[in-house]
Amino acid sequence: MNTNTTTNVKAYGTVAADVPLKQMDIQRRNITAKDIEIEILYCGVCHSDLHTARNDWGFTTYPAVPGHEIVGKVTQVGSDVTKLKVGDFAAVGCLVDSCHTCDNCKKDLEQYCTTGWIGTYGSPDKHLGGMTLGGYSEKIVVDEHFVLKVPANLDLAATAPLLCAGITTWSPLRHWKVGKGSKVAVVGLGGLGHMAIKLAKGLGAEVTLFSRSIDKEKDALELGADAVIISTDETQMSAVNGKFDLIIDTVPYVHDVNPYVGTLNTNGTLVLVGYLGGLEPILNTVPMILGRKSVAGSLIGGIAETQEMLDFCGEHNIVSEIEIIKMQDINEAYERMLKSDVRYRFVIDMASLKS
Amino acid sequence: MNTNTTTNVKAYGTVAADVPLKQMDIQRRNITAKDIEIEILYCGVCHSDLHTARNDWGFTTYPAVPGHEIVGKVTQVGSDVTKLKVGDFAAVGCLVDSCHTCDNCKKDLEQYCTTGWIGTYGSPDKHLGGMTLGGYSEKIVVDEHFVLKVPANLDLAATAPLLCAGITTWSPLRHWKVGKGSKVAVVGLGGLGHMAIKLAKGLGAEVTLFSRSIDKEKDALELGADAVIISTDETQMSAVNGKFDLIIDTVPYVHDVNPYVGTLNTNGTLVLVGYLGGLEPILNTVPMILGRKSVAGSLIGGIAETQEMLDFCGEHNIVSEIEIIKMQDINEAYERMLKSDVRYRFVIDMASLKS
Ligand SMILES: [Zn+2]
Ligand SMILES: [Zn+2]
Ligand SMILES: [Zn+2]
Ligand SMILES: [Zn+2]
Repeated sequence: MNTNTTTNVKAYGTVAADVPLKQMDIQRRNITAKDIEIEILYCGVCHSDLHTARNDWGFTTYPAVPGHEIVGKVTQVGSDVTKLKVGDFAAVGCLVDSCHTCDNCKKDLEQYCTTGWIGTYGSPDKHLGGMTLGGYSEKIVVDEHFVLKVPANLDLAATAPLLCAGITTWSPLRHWKVGKGSKVAVVGLGGLGHMAIKLAKGLGAEVTLFSRSIDKEKDALELGADAVIISTDETQMSAVNGKFDLIIDTVPYVHDVNPYVGTLNTNGTLVLVGYLGGLEPILNTVPMILGRKSVAGSLIGGIAETQEMLDFCGEHNIVSEIEIIKMQDINEAYERMLKSDVRYRFVIDMASLKS
Repeated sequence: MNTNTTTNVKAYGTVAADVPLKQMDIQRRNITAKDIEIEILYCGVCHSDLHTARNDWGFTTYPAVPGHEIVGKVTQVGSDVTKLKVGDFAAVGCLVDSCHTCDNCKKDLEQYCTTGWIGTYGSPDKHLGGMTLGGYSEKIVVDEHFVLKVPANLDLAATAPLLCAGITTWSPLRHWKVGKGSKVAVVGLGGLGHMAIKLAKGLGAEVTLFSRSIDKEKDALELGADAVIISTDETQMSAVNGKFDLIIDTVPYVHDVNPYVGTLNTNGTLVLVGYLGGLEPILNTVPMILGRKSVAGSLIGGIAETQEMLDFCGEHNIVSEIEIIKMQDINEAYERMLKSDVRYRFVIDMASLKS
């Protein structure tokens, strides 16, 4: 690595699946003409961070530095940068590059780039070789196309989770045209689910939370849900039979979606945003055919759409519910996430990394 | 039954699951103010006819008279009828009644009537009691709302299958906005599949047939398909990876849809129109999430949409490929259908019932 073209920065990462995250030094490229350098102030903690650190998906390359819910301040800009200037607040989400030339990139659907988008961590880094390293670090350097503007009125720390949990639920709400009069249900109340409730409500929809336990009811109503349905209660489920236009299913593990399909209205869609795997028990096509219902998937969102979501959150004063932690507490935070012991997103105060 | 209010007509039906269809007498109601009486000239033979006759779905009530691809001539109209007059050609499809008042009926989606639509056969008959009896008969009496006009230029016999096979494939083509530039694939080349090719081609789409065997290729190309992909050939399947905007899957038995999902483009939909049951092997959500793909179902079509389809077929001179049979040959025809030995729809010449 040519140290003339890189800068040394402090980060938190891991060198193997079975060891805790610890402090390490990593290199960031010096800015090119289109790059923005950001001093990271806050970084949200996503389940993908944990899965990557622990190689749960089997494709992690080490050292790995997670983090793709990044909010910070611009410290340098390249000569061709027009989007932001030094001193501006800026954000980076799950994507830091894509091909820019495929049909999907041309349609602002970088998250579906047909040649493969470059993730903020764990993707091949075309500048420095090796893999991209994420937001658990002092600084990051990103092509301006993938840098977002942060509305001035939003709390910076609570904005960070909008960059993954927010856009992942916003994108299907917009794609399936949710607005006033829409009936939306959310399955699961975690980082994604609590944002889905806030954003759907912000868009004017009537919002219902499906939950397995009654303890989530108070929180869900406070977050803006109009109703909570206990999914194991057949009477409650029957009462919402055929009701919803869109169901955002945020559950990250295998689960039976058939009962939820039954609660879709004609032309309704259940969209999976959390679970990558096989649908078990098997999906029954009968209610799908008899009501022209769909089961779909959706991945994060494009860059223009992410800016749209941030601007919408600025106008509607929507941010995530968070618990701020120090960088040094990340391993304990992962353990608590595995027990769903967080309301509803950990955000790392990156000032802790300097100390 | 009050014979003052009914008329005796000849029909072909069955009194049990395990006996052949035979000639029988049935009653048709005398026309009310909104009714049209139709002398049936041709009736297409749908797989549902066979499943109903043999009680394959377990809910057949006997005697059963199948047939819901009906074309004929108007012989009487009620005092309030405005749609057609005596002597006009007319058609009846799968529906003869619905509630007219639910949200779906108001939106011309009678096939998704939330109180349950009334099928042309096998549904409760509110006029005469018992079950509705279908088109394997001399005459039928239907509320004018459910009677279609037949374009004058179309061959009457070859028009009959449009009323089920045609509309069942037309409705998803329209709902998912297929037009010039669309890339459509059809799975399975039978009664539904051959209509899907013709209609998608008529709408200006590029059309591909997925088939398990090469013998269908010549027919598919003659019907208008631009290409045939042998679904068991991995090289051919890879070549169409990510290609299609809409896949109409007409296969009526359990089958693996995962390979077809892989051939959908971003935002693409695979719509099942033939298979009612569980999706086995299990559906993999990974490509659905990574490409915002959907798996959906669709049922027949609404009445206004059926008229739209018939008018479109009139303009584009589209009809079904048929083999005309006598009413007396229906049991043999069913056996041939079970072996897929028909190109592509049997149509009964109802004149044979008079002889
Ligand atoms: Zn994430
Ligand atoms: Zn691209
Ligand atoms: Zn049919
Ligand atoms: Zn209705």
